Amino acid sequence: MFQLLQTDVSSAARRGRLTLAHGVVDTPCFMAVGTQGTVKCMTPHEMRELGAQILLSNTYHLNLRPGIEIIRGAGGLHRFMGWDGPILTDSGGFQVFSLAKLRKLTDEGVHFQSHIDGAACFLGPREVVAIQHALGPDIAMVLDECPHYPCDRETACKAVERSLAWAARCKEEAAKTGFRGKLFGIVQGGVYGDLRRRCAEELVRIGFDGCAIGGLSVGEPDEELFRIAEETAPLLPATQARYVMGVGTPRQLVELVARGVDMFDCALPTRVGRNGTAFTRRGTQSARLAAWKDDPRPVEEGCGCYCCRNYSRAYVRHLFNAEEILGLRLLTWHNLHVYLQLMRDIRAAIADGSFESFRREFVANYRVNNPEGKTT
Amino acid sequence: MFQLLQTDVSSAARRGRLTLAHGVVDTPCFMAVGTQGTVKCMTPHEMRELGAQILLSNTYHLNLRPGIEIIRGAGGLHRFMGWDGPILTDSGGFQVFSLAKLRKLTDEGVHFQSHIDGAACFLGPREVVAIQHALGPDIAMVLDECPHYPCDRETACKAVERSLAWAARCKEEAAKTGFRGKLFGIVQGGVYGDLRRRCAEELVRIGFDGCAIGGLSVGEPDEELFRIAEETAPLLPATQARYVMGVGTPRQLVELVARGVDMFDCALPTRVGRNGTAFTRRGTQSARLAAWKDDPRPVEEGCGCYCCRNYSRAYVRHLFNAEEILGLRLLTWHNLHVYLQLMRDIRAAIADGSFESFRREFVANYRVNNPEGKTT
Repeated sequence: MFQLLQTDVSSAARRGRLTLAHGVVDTPCFMAVGTQGTVKCMTPHEMRELGAQILLSNTYHLNLRPGIEIIRGAGGLHRFMGWDGPILTDSGGFQVFSLAKLRKLTDEGVHFQSHIDGAACFLGPREVVAIQHALGPDIAMVLDECPHYPCDRETACKAVERSLAWAARCKEEAAKTGFRGKLFGIVQGGVYGDLRRRCAEELVRIGFDGCAIGGLSVGEPDEELFRIAEETAPLLPATQARYVMGVGTPRQLVELVARGVDMFDCALPTRVGRNGTAFTRRGTQSARLAAWKDDPRPVEEGCGCYCCRNYSRAYVRHLFNAEEILGLRLLTWHNLHVYLQLMRDIRAAIADGSFESFRREFVANYRVNNPEGKTT
Repeated sequence: MFQLLQTDVSSAARRGRLTLAHGVVDTPCFMAVGTQGTVKCMTPHEMRELGAQILLSNTYHLNLRPGIEIIRGAGGLHRFMGWDGPILTDSGGFQVFSLAKLRKLTDEGVHFQSHIDGAACFLGPREVVAIQHALGPDIAMVLDECPHYPCDRETACKAVERSLAWAARCKEEAAKTGFRGKLFGIVQGGVYGDLRRRCAEELVRIGFDGCAIGGLSVGEPDEELFRIAEETAPLLPATQARYVMGVGTPRQLVELVARGVDMFDCALPTRVGRNGTAFTRRGTQSARLAAWKDDPRPVEEGCGCYCCRNYSRAYVRHLFNAEEILGLRLLTWHNLHVYLQLMRDIRAAIADGSFESFRREFVANYRVNNPEGKTT
């Protein structure tokens, strides 16, 4: 399923290829987030035009609305949402911990109330696999316990043990239900290196098609994020894809690729775009800047995306001021292009042996600012 | 500029062609409304794909935001919004009467407060022509006084005289400023046939490139709308295009074409689409219907639009329930297609002499229901 094509000489960066039921994905890859069965503001055809090879969708959300019966009836998530390329679905675990109300955690799973209507729900390993089986993704994720940050050692340790038990159960359930996609494990362990090691080694022993490094992007500083990835990635099989969930800014992606990560997903480019902020190769810029009001230049000079080929900053700013949906569309489009083009550039740099200088230059040029109260 | 190609044998329906600075428009035509320099939810490229030949934009809105200096600086409205086909701009008169606060009407024009920030503004014939000159549309409209419905005879009479004086002033101003587009007059006169006649005849005497029948779709019943159009259209030159502003539903369009009207604009398909209602050839349907929840069929069976070719009712309903922007996009797309396809079908029916049976069948099949509290 994963073919390791090349390892960078001066970093842990890798270039590879995932061969999945619905197509091939070149890695390192960025997966745009289609939480509710649509990448917000975009059509699947536009995602193809952007060069997206794989999308992510959210088990928690789709299970609550429209519900798996409807998606199963439509012939699975691919047909329901009109995307015929690869899809990865998360397990829903992260959303249960971040969105749901009145959670009650047991060894069997999580009892919680829907954030939509308060309905009582339960997600355990069996449910998570059954739901994903109905959705029919190319890659499914195991259920894990994702503690908040900061998290004391004892809590992190318990989360690791519970996540391992659930991971093993998910693998059994996947075999039982006849799920035909790939199944990824998730490494927990908080900031504790030995717990991360214990979790990674045990997941490798159980045996999955790939592994995620989970529990990141939950408020930890960049140094912790980078350290955990750097320590954990080598514990995972070199012949399998490594996935950091829910991360991150363009700068974080470059730094994590350098530490041996192959797959990413993040809502930032779409969410930040809808809020009127453009990602560029040199940092973020607000479309509401007064300086844009009569600026004839594209959002990012030199950018080849649909937005930048056709519209001026003045027009994009006007659309946001006038609260026009086309504004949300154009910055979403541009931001996704920036992320997907970044991954293409990263792959090309690894391929021609220039990744280390690419990384140095990219990080030096990237202006740290603050689209949503976080370091970018 | 207008070529009358054919007149229907059994009704007053006509088929024609407008040749404008930015292209050719086949009539009868429907102009999608791009109030703030964008057809809501749509790109200009998508409008092309839909077969739109002309768009409408709103002088009142663009003048307040972003302001004409910015659009002039961008090289005019076509370049600002990225649409290289014909554009018609209204005069702003209708919005002054419907949106602005604290209007004060004099023979010179209208003093009013911006509905956005309360700023004091003035629109007279000179201003309306200067603004449209800066926007650079293919067709500009004269300033008119558009009274509310119902409207007594004296008010209607005064509005006619003031509108005529303004129309003449607009023509002079257009010559003075060197406006190179076409200029249309607007017939007022309320429900009073003799006032409509007086207004139409005087506009013809002044001489315009075409004429609108204004002051409609302000609350009058269909019978009044149809009667006024039927009485007024023949008073306008057969060799010029006739335009009914701000109308209407598919059924109203068919009935007005039968009365000799060539051009229409209306916000209904886009607005109703964003509200979750689909126009079909047989009436409207709400995307929120429970019956749609697992319906694999397209929004309208047999429809060739992007939405219907690619997505199910179940998916569209899910998008609206989940408040996803793609839902607004898809129904906007579908509704605009229904309108533009209807005009293509009307033109084909006139061309092959079957318009009268087309009309009878269309009206008989069109289910009257209520997308926004009005008869459709």
